[in-house]
Amino acid sequence: MNVELITIGDELLLGFTIDTNAAHLARSLASIGVSIGRRATVGDDASEIALAVREAFDRTGAVITTGGLGPTSDDRTRPAIAELFGRDLVPDEERWEALRALWRERGRGEIPLSNRGQIMIPRGATVLTNRHGTAPGIWLEDERGRWCAMLPGVPREMRGMLADELLPRLQGRFGTGSTVVRSRTIRTTGIAESKLAEVLGTLASGVDGLSLAYLPGQEGVDLRLTSRDRSAIDADQALDTAAAQLRDRVSRYAYGEDGTDLASAVLEACEARNLHVAVAESCTGGLLGARLTAIPGSSAVVLGGVIAYSNEVKRELLDVRQETLDAYGAVSEQVATEMAAGVRRLVGAHIGMSITGVAGPSGGTADKPVGLVWIGVDVEGTVRTHGSRFIGDRAEIRFRSTQAALDILRRMLGSDAGVR
Amino acid sequence: MNVELITIGDELLLGFTIDTNAAHLARSLASIGVSIGRRATVGDDASEIALAVREAFDRTGAVITTGGLGPTSDDRTRPAIAELFGRDLVPDEERWEALRALWRERGRGEIPLSNRGQIMIPRGATVLTNRHGTAPGIWLEDERGRWCAMLPGVPREMRGMLADELLPRLQGRFGTGSTVVRSRTIRTTGIAESKLAEVLGTLASGVDGLSLAYLPGQEGVDLRLTSRDRSAIDADQALDTAAAQLRDRVSRYAYGEDGTDLASAVLEACEARNLHVAVAESCTGGLLGARLTAIPGSSAVVLGGVIAYSNEVKRELLDVRQETLDAYGAVSEQVATEMAAGVRRLVGAHIGMSITGVAGPSGGTADKPVGLVWIGVDVEGTVRTHGSRFIGDRAEIRFRSTQAALDILRRMLGSDAGVR
Repeated sequence: MNVELITIGDELLLGFTIDTNAAHLARSLASIGVSIGRRATVGDDASEIALAVREAFDRTGAVITTGGLGPTSDDRTRPAIAELFGRDLVPDEERWEALRALWRERGRGEIPLSNRGQIMIPRGATVLTNRHGTAPGIWLEDERGRWCAMLPGVPREMRGMLADELLPRLQGRFGTGSTVVRSRTIRTTGIAESKLAEVLGTLASGVDGLSLAYLPGQEGVDLRLTSRDRSAIDADQALDTAAAQLRDRVSRYAYGEDGTDLASAVLEACEARNLHVAVAESCTGGLLGARLTAIPGSSAVVLGGVIAYSNEVKRELLDVRQETLDAYGAVSEQVATEMAAGVRRLVGAHIGMSITGVAGPSGGTADKPVGLVWIGVDVEGTVRTHGSRFIGDRAEIRFRSTQAALDILRRMLGSDAGVR
Repeated sequence: MNVELITIGDELLLGFTIDTNAAHLARSLASIGVSIGRRATVGDDASEIALAVREAFDRTGAVITTGGLGPTSDDRTRPAIAELFGRDLVPDEERWEALRALWRERGRGEIPLSNRGQIMIPRGATVLTNRHGTAPGIWLEDERGRWCAMLPGVPREMRGMLADELLPRLQGRFGTGSTVVRSRTIRTTGIAESKLAEVLGTLASGVDGLSLAYLPGQEGVDLRLTSRDRSAIDADQALDTAAAQLRDRVSRYAYGEDGTDLASAVLEACEARNLHVAVAESCTGGLLGARLTAIPGSSAVVLGGVIAYSNEVKRELLDVRQETLDAYGAVSEQVATEMAAGVRRLVGAHIGMSITGVAGPSGGTADKPVGLVWIGVDVEGTVRTHGSRFIGDRAEIRFRSTQAALDILRRMLGSDAGVR
């Protein structure tokens, strides 16, 4: 079951609004086995709207629109699509009375006549009730069973109407015996996309009819398996099996599934072993601590730490020795080691994590270029250090540094590492 | 000048990724007078890509695509569009050698052959250099002057290539004579949207034919003025004048324009007065430090700080007294005051900023509900404290706390405040 989605609005086309409705709709529809074959965005222009709907209609006969249903003059979806279907617009007086009552009830006085646009319904259409706003949605169907559902553009109203009205209608229409689109994501870090494909070998282009997508980002590369054209039960089973196969191949790099944050995986590993964490951050300036404490319940693991942006703070609070700073510089394996040990002692934690680097854009030298970062992780005296040269801008270098630090700790706590 | 935009990727169509590239492209193109007539999104399917490009091509002869240029098997843009133009793909061996060298340089060893997909260029195409990643962009033009520009899907790479390569090319091609769409944003914080409209009075619905939009978000409410249908010079002039009028009315709440971050405005004020800052963070766990140090050059102002997540750290490092903790609790005006003073002394800074609160989702009590946050700012012994009850989830409460802390310091350093 394939539909096309048309999102309508000048603000979308001009880029003032980011289209979050489209993603929400896609995921909601996938959950009942409906997939979006194509999506288009057009401005508040009646002929553009009509043209896009007609094209989509010719391809699939199943179209969902969002936006352009409000009372103002730039809301043109209703008349444009009514004309396309050859239907005139008739006022729904009952709805008008209800709107009038609502305005009075809310102490807003008499409703302006300009709102009557909202109650003009194409002849023969079914109204989709809007429980979160005033503009009703519309379901329009022709004699051949082709249909167009018009939803509002305000995300809260769209989501409510989708859940309350459109999803049940589509489910009723197409039964539940049909197939679904389901996905499973395996999150990896510390390995490049092309290298990952190599490690996956024969699994690299998919498993058992499931497609495999590589989604590189700041946090690493996500591997997303997608099942189409199977029932919900078959899809889940196939995804379980395939995900296990993939995890087997990339176990060194995989830290979680779907929405899991690496910080959360690390906190769990620490909590399971009753280990407390302290952080010492130079170039990341608190970002590692912020990521860890973003996770609810992190106070069971994180005690605190030191933002050691200046060398004085490194020396005075973290006991980094002046000789070490002089001999190797603040961005060095040696200083990272002393910072990690220092914060562990200072805070009285089992684990000290340190980051020191050149986040840029300036401050780089031939010897210590922008992107060079040293990380130290001290787990009860066992120390691992890691030097990287990260690419990207300041924000990326900082984020990737925290990701690498978390990954080092994850590996140290892994079953293969022998720490506890 | 009208172009069509086609964003490519299963993850966009399935709703796993929200399409932020489209908005960025639209705004960037508008700044040089190019508008997007229609936007479409298709999955990683060669025939769907070819179909969408062909249709757009027939309508406008000017198409920009994003996505599907990477090395893996789900990256199908290049071959699909090459075929549409009737061009074969030829390897760019020079580029291959450069890629190989890059891999070695970064210590990643020999480049896997799977990367060769990225250097296959349609015959006769112009390569758009990618300074932020490995996949090059492509400019393809037919004998009738119709063109298609293929950009990568990774936002950072797309943005870089757009600015470095595509915008200059389009500007050179189409001249600069026509009208532009331009905007100016005035950023406010610490005031609600409806209150802002009240303060703006007669300016509330726009100035001199410029539209005014209210954009509320975590950081505060942005006021966006937009000019359409004027030349670049006229638009800039009108925006300058109107922005000055708006700033006049809301000066207490306005901290900057366009992309300015409040942290950046505060750092500037500190640097101008030669003041050094230290932070003491409980519920924000490093987020305030991270925001400050996200700004390049922040090391001239920020010395460091303490993440005092546990009470022990508050006591031992920040000299918060046990009696204060016992009498008022960790989330209190008194503890915020002692934390700010404590970190200022410990780090040897002029300014100490502290945050202590209940970020939730659990841990709230009737007395101290989730969202209750106390902030202390100590500027050379002059202390301001502020208690708020923020709404939102954990992430929002934490972010709003840092925003409020920065705003307190901004106001203390403002000309009206008499600090220095």
